[in-house]
Amino acid sequence: MENAEVGLIGLAVMGANLARNISNNGFKTVVYNRTTEKMTQYIEEFGNENLIGKESLEDFVQSIARPRKIIILVKAGDAVDAVINQLIPLVEKGDMIIDCGNTNYRDTIRRTNDLNEKGIHFIGCGVSGGEEGALNGPSIMPGGSPESWEEMKEMWKAIAADDFLGGPCTAHIGEGGAGHYVKMVHNGIEYAVMQMIAEAYDMLKKMYGQTPDEIAKVFKRFNEGRLNSFLFEIAVPVLLKKDGSAHIIDVILDKAGQKGTGKWTAIEALDRGIGLSSISESVFARVNSSYKEDRVHLARSFPKPELQSETTLEEFIQLLEQSLYAGMLSCYAQGFELIKLASTEEGWKVNLSEVSRIWQGGCIIRAEVLQFLTDTYKASGKESPKLLELKEIQKAINGSLPAWRDIICLSVQAGIPTPALTSGLQYIDASTTERLPANMIQGLRDYFGAHTYERTDKEGSFHTDWSE
Amino acid sequence: MENAEVGLIGLAVMGANLARNISNNGFKTVVYNRTTEKMTQYIEEFGNENLIGKESLEDFVQSIARPRKIIILVKAGDAVDAVINQLIPLVEKGDMIIDCGNTNYRDTIRRTNDLNEKGIHFIGCGVSGGEEGALNGPSIMPGGSPESWEEMKEMWKAIAADDFLGGPCTAHIGEGGAGHYVKMVHNGIEYAVMQMIAEAYDMLKKMYGQTPDEIAKVFKRFNEGRLNSFLFEIAVPVLLKKDGSAHIIDVILDKAGQKGTGKWTAIEALDRGIGLSSISESVFARVNSSYKEDRVHLARSFPKPELQSETTLEEFIQLLEQSLYAGMLSCYAQGFELIKLASTEEGWKVNLSEVSRIWQGGCIIRAEVLQFLTDTYKASGKESPKLLELKEIQKAINGSLPAWRDIICLSVQAGIPTPALTSGLQYIDASTTERLPANMIQGLRDYFGAHTYERTDKEGSFHTDWSE
Repeated sequence: MENAEVGLIGLAVMGANLARNISNNGFKTVVYNRTTEKMTQYIEEFGNENLIGKESLEDFVQSIARPRKIIILVKAGDAVDAVINQLIPLVEKGDMIIDCGNTNYRDTIRRTNDLNEKGIHFIGCGVSGGEEGALNGPSIMPGGSPESWEEMKEMWKAIAADDFLGGPCTAHIGEGGAGHYVKMVHNGIEYAVMQMIAEAYDMLKKMYGQTPDEIAKVFKRFNEGRLNSFLFEIAVPVLLKKDGSAHIIDVILDKAGQKGTGKWTAIEALDRGIGLSSISESVFARVNSSYKEDRVHLARSFPKPELQSETTLEEFIQLLEQSLYAGMLSCYAQGFELIKLASTEEGWKVNLSEVSRIWQGGCIIRAEVLQFLTDTYKASGKESPKLLELKEIQKAINGSLPAWRDIICLSVQAGIPTPALTSGLQYIDASTTERLPANMIQGLRDYFGAHTYERTDKEGSFHTDWSE
Repeated sequence: MENAEVGLIGLAVMGANLARNISNNGFKTVVYNRTTEKMTQYIEEFGNENLIGKESLEDFVQSIARPRKIIILVKAGDAVDAVINQLIPLVEKGDMIIDCGNTNYRDTIRRTNDLNEKGIHFIGCGVSGGEEGALNGPSIMPGGSPESWEEMKEMWKAIAADDFLGGPCTAHIGEGGAGHYVKMVHNGIEYAVMQMIAEAYDMLKKMYGQTPDEIAKVFKRFNEGRLNSFLFEIAVPVLLKKDGSAHIIDVILDKAGQKGTGKWTAIEALDRGIGLSSISESVFARVNSSYKEDRVHLARSFPKPELQSETTLEEFIQLLEQSLYAGMLSCYAQGFELIKLASTEEGWKVNLSEVSRIWQGGCIIRAEVLQFLTDTYKASGKESPKLLELKEIQKAINGSLPAWRDIICLSVQAGIPTPALTSGLQYIDASTTERLPANMIQGLRDYFGAHTYERTDKEGSFHTDWSE
């Protein structure tokens, strides 16, 4: 085979599974790996007439039909630049280099511009779904030029997961860094959803003494309703799994790790100016968890309040379900506002209705709520309105607000931190309050720094000598 | 006069006032401004035997005694580099260039290294106090080399504000970017304190129908107790001031501006991994306030709950006072942890006891609580312990926790966003909880991404096949 339809570099778990997915779907695929042994072992196990390997990068590139499609799946950062630099002398004008890693979108913009000058298409492409999704159908978020999308869309559609109506979980996100940007926000939302699940778990455990088996039952019930989602689904086996007689969940150390995409999303929101508390608070929750030794030590000096909730367990579960649902909607409202602003500022023209659709399957945050979002976007007749403007969203959130307020108060009185659920509620309250107390802040700033203020009753900038 | 002891470049309001402060304290000062007219007007008005101006940068530099001390007060960013580049051919080894602007500490580190190579001391120096502080005594936070501190300390001490015991509000913060870093965190804390004041104002106004005059009375009372501080003090005239028959506070537009240092602080916390919710939530509160048109529009679709608080106004004011005090302590605990981590990572050896001391006067966040912090640090016998470890701090926070929980619940039930007060409480709860639900997050991450987890009962990294 000297006319592979696509090449893939990097046979760690994501690359290995993605190449199998592509070749299984009938696309002749050639793979290359820096360590040849890994490639030969992989081909021994999985190779077939559609899936071959090459030992040298030259042979690898030569075996791909033009215009070449070369997918890179190596560690984000310098390794991507190294591979690109090795490829540049080997590829030709019109060829496509596709980075499917978790790359920072600013690197993608830089690489796109650099390769554009050489006539090479560079595509930053978000892929979500973990190992399993890469093999059986991920959610695929390609950026890059419209021409490259035309060249590749048949393959992306073939290997992607299905949405709830059977369509492919992929679409052209926009030029430049758009694909990696949307994937970054996806991961930020993933942080917040996981944090909300953890908060629900914590409240059930500490306020109602529920065992892992009992909490699994609650989550199973949630997963059978409108909270139906991959993360609630897998929370059940995570809670149930035993190691001998003990539940593994009970012996997992409560220090959460992170790989940076949640943090990037929060920083983006701070830099561009979008309220994104649900995600930033979820990042800080992981950070706070990491100071385990300090927490153990300080817990002795900060006793938690006695619990005296008059809410029955069944009532609590119903309040919790409503809070979690509204919490998700708040989190999507925030994340989508960030994508919208970045899209405007960068000129990407991202279609949020499509984003919600292609997240319906394959990816980690896949959930029934995304079908609701897509349907609501469609019914609005607009591509990317503000989520909170849409009647159906308003109805869903307003219906949950009393329960949500009660859940926050219960957790606050119990001394159980619920930063994601709480900040999600306060985002809704702040975003829907006609008069916020920012006038007080502006008055203070004008007093000590002569920063001036605007007025509600006339145009212009004003300064007052307050001390007179 | 050809032997000025110090030179100052940049006669905008901060520079103009700082030069007057320096010369008023008996230090012969020469000033330079890019626009000569501004300099000549300034000298006409304020010039004397200790304060002269020069029209050319060459003459300016020549008129300063060696080793030269040259203070720059121009707009942070490119303008600082431009001035430095103009100075380089004119100065000599051992001379000192001091940037007193609100510069990002990373720029300061870069400039320090560049000028070090040329044998020139570069000092990034935080100055807080606004126009009034610059003239009558600011809080001064110089970074840079110990040698430069020795050369300049007499002047810094002479022009700085006094702390509560009459000492000067200045100290050598540490090398490199330490001074600008500590000033950045000062500004971040300023964001949070102002946001808490705004939240208190909002609750008194909306939940108890208090007028600006009545709220001013409450704040005046707060300012007479342990909340005594510059910001509560100036909040009173800001509330009382009238424009004809109307209170100005009532017509100030509720969109808060920002100049970036709060955002920088929050980004630093995300990057280094310190929970800093009180500050990040205060930045997001300003961001949310800026979407005024959307808020007005959405308010119609999200009616706020009917208020039915059984708490009397007097009870509420007492709860509020306790919450604000504990909220400040939480905010300082967070900010000081950030400084401590940065100091360790950058090798600055910042003394937090000294930081709390030099913030007692001159700067925007000057407050009685800082004397409490300094005293508590001193009593601990340690320079920079974790604030939450100290018995007196624990006592103060624990004493306020019941009130604080009540205030948060009242605001949440009223639909009044209190992001700074709420996140401050949740930081305390999270930092003092022995077992957080991060184990749930780690279980989920291991399920979908094989990220592995640690255990509480044995060493190592573990992975489970959860779906078995």
